[in-house]
Amino acid sequence: MDIRNMITEPTLLLDEERVRHHIRAMAEKARRQGIQFRPHFKTHQSAEIGRWFREEGVDRITVSSLRMAEYFARDGWEDILVAFPLNLREADTVRRLAQKVRLGVLIESEKTAQWLVEQIHFPTEVYIEVDVGYRRTGIAPEQRDLIETIVSIISRSSHHRWRGFLTHAGQTYQAREKEQIQSVYLESVQRLQEWKMYFRKRGFDPLISWGDTPSCSVMDSLEGVDEIRPGNFVFYDLMQWQIGSCSLQQIAVVLACPVVSLHPERDEIVVYGGAVHLSKERMEWGDEGPIYGRAVFLNNRGWEIPEIFLPVISLSQEHGKIRMQRFMMAHISPGDLIGILPVHSCLTVHAMKKYLTLGGRWIDAMTTDP
Amino acid sequence: MDIRNMITEPTLLLDEERVRHHIRAMAEKARRQGIQFRPHFKTHQSAEIGRWFREEGVDRITVSSLRMAEYFARDGWEDILVAFPLNLREADTVRRLAQKVRLGVLIESEKTAQWLVEQIHFPTEVYIEVDVGYRRTGIAPEQRDLIETIVSIISRSSHHRWRGFLTHAGQTYQAREKEQIQSVYLESVQRLQEWKMYFRKRGFDPLISWGDTPSCSVMDSLEGVDEIRPGNFVFYDLMQWQIGSCSLQQIAVVLACPVVSLHPERDEIVVYGGAVHLSKERMEWGDEGPIYGRAVFLNNRGWEIPEIFLPVISLSQEHGKIRMQRFMMAHISPGDLIGILPVHSCLTVHAMKKYLTLGGRWIDAMTTDP
Repeated sequence: MDIRNMITEPTLLLDEERVRHHIRAMAEKARRQGIQFRPHFKTHQSAEIGRWFREEGVDRITVSSLRMAEYFARDGWEDILVAFPLNLREADTVRRLAQKVRLGVLIESEKTAQWLVEQIHFPTEVYIEVDVGYRRTGIAPEQRDLIETIVSIISRSSHHRWRGFLTHAGQTYQAREKEQIQSVYLESVQRLQEWKMYFRKRGFDPLISWGDTPSCSVMDSLEGVDEIRPGNFVFYDLMQWQIGSCSLQQIAVVLACPVVSLHPERDEIVVYGGAVHLSKERMEWGDEGPIYGRAVFLNNRGWEIPEIFLPVISLSQEHGKIRMQRFMMAHISPGDLIGILPVHSCLTVHAMKKYLTLGGRWIDAMTTDP
Repeated sequence: MDIRNMITEPTLLLDEERVRHHIRAMAEKARRQGIQFRPHFKTHQSAEIGRWFREEGVDRITVSSLRMAEYFARDGWEDILVAFPLNLREADTVRRLAQKVRLGVLIESEKTAQWLVEQIHFPTEVYIEVDVGYRRTGIAPEQRDLIETIVSIISRSSHHRWRGFLTHAGQTYQAREKEQIQSVYLESVQRLQEWKMYFRKRGFDPLISWGDTPSCSVMDSLEGVDEIRPGNFVFYDLMQWQIGSCSLQQIAVVLACPVVSLHPERDEIVVYGGAVHLSKERMEWGDEGPIYGRAVFLNNRGWEIPEIFLPVISLSQEHGKIRMQRFMMAHISPGDLIGILPVHSCLTVHAMKKYLTLGGRWIDAMTTDP
């Protein structure tokens, strides 16, 4: 079988073997170090791929919205953490979920803590988000009063249990060397440990929940944290490759795109595959300026990555433009397929909403509508 | 009724009155000048909004994929042009559509013309794509031999009819003044007219089909073209505002986002509303660097645009970060709503797939699955 014959329009190819390998490797890494593994499912967004995690012993997950929590709850997951600041407009969904599963919620303000205690009379597990330097959401470790206030509000409630501290050290995405990731990790964990120790002395036993694929991928030891929540590692992508979290060969998804236009006179080809398929995520690549993907060649068993760098240099709604030297175009014509390694696999998956495995099987992801 | 009470998660608000006004104004402009109006439906992607065009006398449309053509054919449209280079892997869809509607297809290579004539034995209307300077797809006007070859291949076929030249002058998106748009328009139309005259002398009567919202919006006279295909004008967005195609007040869609996190210490608030809602489209804005949207305030009748510029300065998968001066945060707390004017409404609509009108009615757009 040649899966290329199954492809008529932009199609997200998935190397199942590679994905299962990534899942197994991360699950083992956590197990070896005695750390809880709570993978983030916002990357694959698929009930079926979720089951591959279950086969590796995973029984708790992270998601990025209540909607996604409901989707995975329907597939039998019973321990779900929503790693996004609690949205006060979704009280009904929170109640529904809290009755059904062990629901983790994220708090970073006094108002939200108060709201939870007053409005939700079903049990939740509360994580306090700490900002260790990413500067998106979360409480700075210095905001002692706020942390204490939230712990005290939650502790007084009979429904809710304070579970610990959660952080996403997104600043590791700026790293280009292992040492940079390591220093973010060590410094951040130390600050969280100080808080953990402080509350231990007061009779609590808060855990430290740690996110981000770069550190979970490159750190040999994840000492000092109790739980990890990497998500992107399941597929990886060009951004992770640029950071150093993975090799190009480890990237497990490729967007297969029909070639529609060849322009040898300016070293460009155009494929059917644009912003609505890849997302408009971009990354800077040396003198190239921003790129939106990297082209690879498809064969009957998957894809091969040419030595030569073939960047996606622009995207419109449905078009992708790839820079390719004239001599490489000799064997390409309209109707052929070109693969694109995505810059950010989470967003590409979200745009595509289904996969085709190299074995020729379609796999669904969550759709936008409930 | 206060529609804010209907909103629990990121929701695309649509000002129906404004949209109907844009449709009417563009339809009248075309009519006044005796030009065919074939609006591009890739922006709204909605059967219902399509019907608002029908009410203004529109009977022919443009789409950006065969999939979208099928969606609108199901809603009764009978004259559909797919303004995207013909994808040779979708022969079955082309055949299905060609039997059902008057199907326009876009050709820009000899191979594709040959393929059409050999593989598709149902009638299509063929447009030759001419590149007037955007450098994405299309044949340069100087490629005399290629244009002649394609015309001759199509003319020999008994099924297919050569309809004329199509162009998308996407370089107008770089314009910041009316004069720049005007000069792109006049220069491009002149080149297309030369080709038209050339073929007229040989007994053909090719039309000139012209795209792009900037020129269709700002040009007082659209002399020299036979058909216009603007799409974005139905909603407009920040990018069109930057170009000068519209005022801020004319933008007809806003993403309503729940506030989840306030950071007065660094003049930032974070909303539930990220790359999966707005798309990651960005634009440069003076010293601001890239921005991903502009915040507005919602009220019970819609939105109002504050004088002060409140840019969306970063987006992750579900988070949007807005720069907002501390003093403006005094009346905002988690659970409130903030509106965001999108940088690129086509991509935001594609991500959201449904609208809520200011009258409180939900409108669907096309979903990814067929």
